[in-house]
Amino acid sequence: MFTIKWEGDAVVILDQRRLPVRETYSTYRHYSGVVNSIKDMEIRGAPAIGVAAAMGIALASLNFDDAKPEKFRERMNDAIGLFAAARPTAVNLFWAINRMKAVLESASDKNSAREKLKAEALRIYEEDIAANREIGRLGSAYIKDGDTVMTHCNAGALATAGYGTALGVIRAAVEQGKKIQVFACETRPYLQGARLTAWELMKEGIPVTVITDGMSGHFMSRGAIQKVIVGADRIAANGDAANKIGTYGHSVLAREHGIPFYVAAPVSTLDPGVATGNEIPIEERSVDEVAYIGERQIVPEGVFIRNPSFDVTPARNISAIITEKGVIENPCGRGITGFLQGLK
Amino acid sequence: MFTIKWEGDAVVILDQRRLPVRETYSTYRHYSGVVNSIKDMEIRGAPAIGVAAAMGIALASLNFDDAKPEKFRERMNDAIGLFAAARPTAVNLFWAINRMKAVLESASDKNSAREKLKAEALRIYEEDIAANREIGRLGSAYIKDGDTVMTHCNAGALATAGYGTALGVIRAAVEQGKKIQVFACETRPYLQGARLTAWELMKEGIPVTVITDGMSGHFMSRGAIQKVIVGADRIAANGDAANKIGTYGHSVLAREHGIPFYVAAPVSTLDPGVATGNEIPIEERSVDEVAYIGERQIVPEGVFIRNPSFDVTPARNISAIITEKGVIENPCGRGITGFLQGLK
Repeated sequence: MFTIKWEGDAVVILDQRRLPVRETYSTYRHYSGVVNSIKDMEIRGAPAIGVAAAMGIALASLNFDDAKPEKFRERMNDAIGLFAAARPTAVNLFWAINRMKAVLESASDKNSAREKLKAEALRIYEEDIAANREIGRLGSAYIKDGDTVMTHCNAGALATAGYGTALGVIRAAVEQGKKIQVFACETRPYLQGARLTAWELMKEGIPVTVITDGMSGHFMSRGAIQKVIVGADRIAANGDAANKIGTYGHSVLAREHGIPFYVAAPVSTLDPGVATGNEIPIEERSVDEVAYIGERQIVPEGVFIRNPSFDVTPARNISAIITEKGVIENPCGRGITGFLQGLK
Repeated sequence: MFTIKWEGDAVVILDQRRLPVRETYSTYRHYSGVVNSIKDMEIRGAPAIGVAAAMGIALASLNFDDAKPEKFRERMNDAIGLFAAARPTAVNLFWAINRMKAVLESASDKNSAREKLKAEALRIYEEDIAANREIGRLGSAYIKDGDTVMTHCNAGALATAGYGTALGVIRAAVEQGKKIQVFACETRPYLQGARLTAWELMKEGIPVTVITDGMSGHFMSRGAIQKVIVGADRIAANGDAANKIGTYGHSVLAREHGIPFYVAAPVSTLDPGVATGNEIPIEERSVDEVAYIGERQIVPEGVFIRNPSFDVTPARNISAIITEKGVIENPCGRGITGFLQGLK
């Protein structure tokens, strides 16, 4: 199993919409297929869509092979624009695009651009896996033998180039011999918890229990959950974190019950360019994601539906932000800017 | 449209499992059909299953018409036992059963029992509608013109003999000319909010927006919700209220945002016999309710699932309990016992 791979002159992507029932892969030789793959959530998860955009941009440089030199950059910029418009919330997408843009600008000609873009995309891919392993190593210190850890959505191997952020922390704890149980919230409407997190943990033999999103408070109140760990799609300068819709509610409940709440994300998710979570754009997706499950209609015709895909967890509800470059404990009041400056 | 009706010598029940796609009715001439109707959630909602049990017990007395007098009471008690075992959490079921038992015991012979049981079942039915109207009248004082009111599960006409408890309050406010919007949480796993609340409000032209359960915190944080009102399945002596799973989480979020949180329920839902919410039995239903939506499997084979059907909202999160006999404001610390004694 893999989430995304560069193979020959193509990008191969696991179709996550068909999981857990079918494990099928799509092969894209044209960049526009990768744009749609991101838009339609064939691939999802902030780090994974960053990698997909990088590989897609590298693919575009192959697709434009026969363009005249003066047209090549124009067409590349158009393609990059399509990736930037694919999904608005996860900042990793823009971070990967900016890296690819810089490489494109530094390339002397078309041939060197092609080569350098492919190398950069593969570097972003490799770095993501390495970052996840380091997040896992640093984060696992917060997970105790015997803990039941709740997570929301999928911040696993399927949301990244491999290993995962939140699930990377759980994997690392398990690799250290700690006995960990996972409670996976199903994560309506797209069911990433039930379909993806349950699937990837089960494949690895890590005990996982699926609950509906509304059950988290009940199980916290009965003492069944010791830690909460989630991924993030963008973390603002003040430490507020955008993540899959439903995360905010879990964070309030965790605080109510004195349960530590961790956010695991690579440095590429930190966005000092937005001051607070209120400024993070929240994607509203098609209401059909709520109205239908498979073919089954669950909301009657003529009823309004809202479908914001993300919410914002304020820094005050976050015990620590775990990155591959270090952990920001109690981000409330401190934010992430000092941490980022310390890295330079 | 009706939820349940006594017609001829039969009980007619709307099959809520097929809503909102199909509106079909089942006709039961044997009490065991009504037992299964409650168990399998063809009919659901605490007041409605109380009415169903009462009508089912009246039906049993017709079914046992040819039993010898000495066998009649034995068989009636067996039938009553099946109703009592149908679902454990809603106390209205036991309250209705106790009323029917008392009538059965007071009847001099089989013929008088049959007649009296039917009359009592119809009385419970009528009283429920009247109680809902009074709950609506009293509760509507708390709803302002222009409010957006969030509700969870279905505490409407479909959960009662008619009119509804939480939705009765909304109906009454609308009848008074107040402009009300409703946010209906879809209520996983059984989707009573998406399927039932949306359906019955839409039929009446009350604007309703379906959201997933995990979205409540997001919309509260953005100022989109002014009030929360839900039903209850059992309210303990200290004011703790058991209601559909997910309610507790919404109550914590409402308190976090300073949003009033109301519980609307008839006096038959008050159970001074249990001291606190911790003592209320919480039904765990089939894991298939979580694993499948219609025919579609959303959780992979071999993954654990939990499916508690209810949770407990502590009295401290409840602004007021609205009953047909009066409102208990700020039940925390006071509970319901004094209120019940005042009624006698």
